[in-house]
Amino acid sequence: MGVKISDQWLRATLETLYQSRTATRSQLIENTGFNPACISLTLQHLMTSGVLQKVGDLRSTGGRKREVLKLNSEAGYFAVVDLEASQVRFGLTNFLGDLRFRWEDVPAYGRDLDVDRIAAGVQMVLRNLGPAERGRVLAAGISYTGTMDAQGRVSACNLGWIDFPLREQLDEALGLPVFYGSESFCKILAERWLGVAQDSGNCVSVRVELGIGVGIFVDGRLLKGHSGMAGEFGHIAIDPALTYRCNCGKMGCLETVASTPNMIRRYLERTGRADIPPQPSHFAELLGKAREGDPDALAVIDCAGRYLGLALSHLVNVLNPELIVLGGDPVRGEDLFGPRIEAELRRHCLPALLPGLKLRMSSLGDDIGLKGAASLAFRSALEHPQLLKRMAGPVLLDHPEEVPHRPPSSRRDRLTVTARKNH
Amino acid sequence: MGVKISDQWLRATLETLYQSRTATRSQLIENTGFNPACISLTLQHLMTSGVLQKVGDLRSTGGRKREVLKLNSEAGYFAVVDLEASQVRFGLTNFLGDLRFRWEDVPAYGRDLDVDRIAAGVQMVLRNLGPAERGRVLAAGISYTGTMDAQGRVSACNLGWIDFPLREQLDEALGLPVFYGSESFCKILAERWLGVAQDSGNCVSVRVELGIGVGIFVDGRLLKGHSGMAGEFGHIAIDPALTYRCNCGKMGCLETVASTPNMIRRYLERTGRADIPPQPSHFAELLGKAREGDPDALAVIDCAGRYLGLALSHLVNVLNPELIVLGGDPVRGEDLFGPRIEAELRRHCLPALLPGLKLRMSSLGDDIGLKGAASLAFRSALEHPQLLKRMAGPVLLDHPEEVPHRPPSSRRDRLTVTARKNH
Repeated sequence: MGVKISDQWLRATLETLYQSRTATRSQLIENTGFNPACISLTLQHLMTSGVLQKVGDLRSTGGRKREVLKLNSEAGYFAVVDLEASQVRFGLTNFLGDLRFRWEDVPAYGRDLDVDRIAAGVQMVLRNLGPAERGRVLAAGISYTGTMDAQGRVSACNLGWIDFPLREQLDEALGLPVFYGSESFCKILAERWLGVAQDSGNCVSVRVELGIGVGIFVDGRLLKGHSGMAGEFGHIAIDPALTYRCNCGKMGCLETVASTPNMIRRYLERTGRADIPPQPSHFAELLGKAREGDPDALAVIDCAGRYLGLALSHLVNVLNPELIVLGGDPVRGEDLFGPRIEAELRRHCLPALLPGLKLRMSSLGDDIGLKGAASLAFRSALEHPQLLKRMAGPVLLDHPEEVPHRPPSSRRDRLTVTARKNH
Repeated sequence: MGVKISDQWLRATLETLYQSRTATRSQLIENTGFNPACISLTLQHLMTSGVLQKVGDLRSTGGRKREVLKLNSEAGYFAVVDLEASQVRFGLTNFLGDLRFRWEDVPAYGRDLDVDRIAAGVQMVLRNLGPAERGRVLAAGISYTGTMDAQGRVSACNLGWIDFPLREQLDEALGLPVFYGSESFCKILAERWLGVAQDSGNCVSVRVELGIGVGIFVDGRLLKGHSGMAGEFGHIAIDPALTYRCNCGKMGCLETVASTPNMIRRYLERTGRADIPPQPSHFAELLGKAREGDPDALAVIDCAGRYLGLALSHLVNVLNPELIVLGGDPVRGEDLFGPRIEAELRRHCLPALLPGLKLRMSSLGDDIGLKGAASLAFRSALEHPQLLKRMAGPVLLDHPEEVPHRPPSSRRDRLTVTARKNH
């Protein structure tokens, strides 16, 4: 039939299946809002091209059989990079966001990023694919710390990067379509796709690490802002009485009392060790001492918890989310941070906004940045007409279950899965 | 031709023309993202049904003529109500949001709203239409103060309304499809449609009146929140050191220092008149005295301006807008409030978010709530399949320019346009 399949039908179908993992034809019709004939045509096309698979049947009480559909997990691959503060993570994910290969590097950050080293890390994971699979690497997704300007230059005050031309250099070095998203964007995308926020169209993900960022999903969409810099939650001036100077140059930012290094600093000051540089082990000590009832440790956690709760109450009053996902280092101190943050939320939120509001800890661990970068790449590729065409197939291998599992090569032996590390 | 015109094409075409006022076919294709054949079919249909009008031609350098199109202003009408704090405004707007009739009522608020009186006000404006026009009243739009729960009950702590079943009672009384939006939502829609935010996809509208609310447009869409209550900006606890009790029951809300009645209260306290109830005339006095350099008046305005600027810096850091529209009573004191708010924004926003950020005063005056309710009704009707069909015509009168301008009836003599009133 000469009927052309619209990009909009393809995009909506792929996006729905990507978010919901499995769906029936009628669920797809309901979710996309397109008419049944359009969706049937689209499904037929995706099935023929090998992008869609039937994974079972549902029978309604009327006895009518409905096929359950899912995306072929091996229909495409994404190279993903998490430019985290203290290390660079690399990964190769399949179409569904499962990490197939993984690599880590602890760069000796000078003032700048080393783009060649990033490109080498990406090559490291790509080399694990066979030639047919290599042809199905669709794009790269990069999660970066800090802010990126319109020219693609990143700055991160906590790391000393200033106007580093990341996009220009990396676009050239990778030889793939590359999509960039701030750490906050990528991490809320990961929570939405694979984490505790899968069913929530209005949620915020707050992460306390070297800095404090927030990713916001409102009315079912990622909030980006005018120049794509929404989410600088760590730099709100939370209390005019605070006199600590932030790395950004301003006074009284939330980060000065509630980021991990600053919690450690406050704790070291209180315990007569103000001259020692903060180390990850100090955070474990802080949590341990607080659990023993140590007043210095409790005072630091009280203060951070109180300010985090107050700052989150601003977000609740303004954005009216149904879910707050707390991630990063406080996850390890859920027993300490959870109740303190909740108490402040109750105190400062408009009561009408509290019913149904949930506070949850992130469950995604260290790979959240890589998974978020994969989600970013998938979503961004959908908006890119040529990549959308490639995503819709045809997939070269007829039976993806038969993708050869290659024996570990010398190169693959070098891939490491390190233990959880912070800072 | 048997080709069916998709609701999505209609919706996208009507919405684009509604936002941009005029457009050429190629602009519509670019804006909606649909293919040229679909848009041509849709335009043909809308032209035939009388909803669309040709208003001119553009000639490009290549000499090819492009028709400029606009919506027929009389293709449909909306009854609109602004349930403002101190008075109820009624209006009838045409398809483009122009107010054709207008009515005002100063209700003797007891604890509750008088729905019969609201319905009577709506009838008052509808009676001005001839029978043919009456048939094209598509829906009603209601802008309400306070919050509405899932059952459609409104509560407004500043007015003493608690769980008033507005939706249930008004849906029945009006006999029209009724759409409800909070004051903050309606007012940012008005700014987007007819005010200073027409070209801005990322903007916040902050209004300081009896309370303080914010309407937020991000990435081209109204931010609603999980239960449709986003924007409770007046109730963020802006400074832990503030000890004023807010009408909502909490301590230290932004409203306690920066709402109009509270600015007046602070001023009366400073001038030995703490026992006098705040009156609108006091706000004029406050502005006048501040302009003369009176230290009490300046201290009150300094304090309110400082806290408004600080609170707005939170919004900028989190939402990254390109435009802040300040509306309500500070518009009358632009010279006083503008510089104070801007100075605090510069002090507390992350520097990367400042370039290009604009602060503007609202220009829409007292009818902003009615215009916003019309915008809400238009946008909501687009999402409603049956109303969308009615919006797409056919329009009964062939030549809308010939809509008879009926002479003022005794009823119309009662319509008033009152001078600006606050409180």
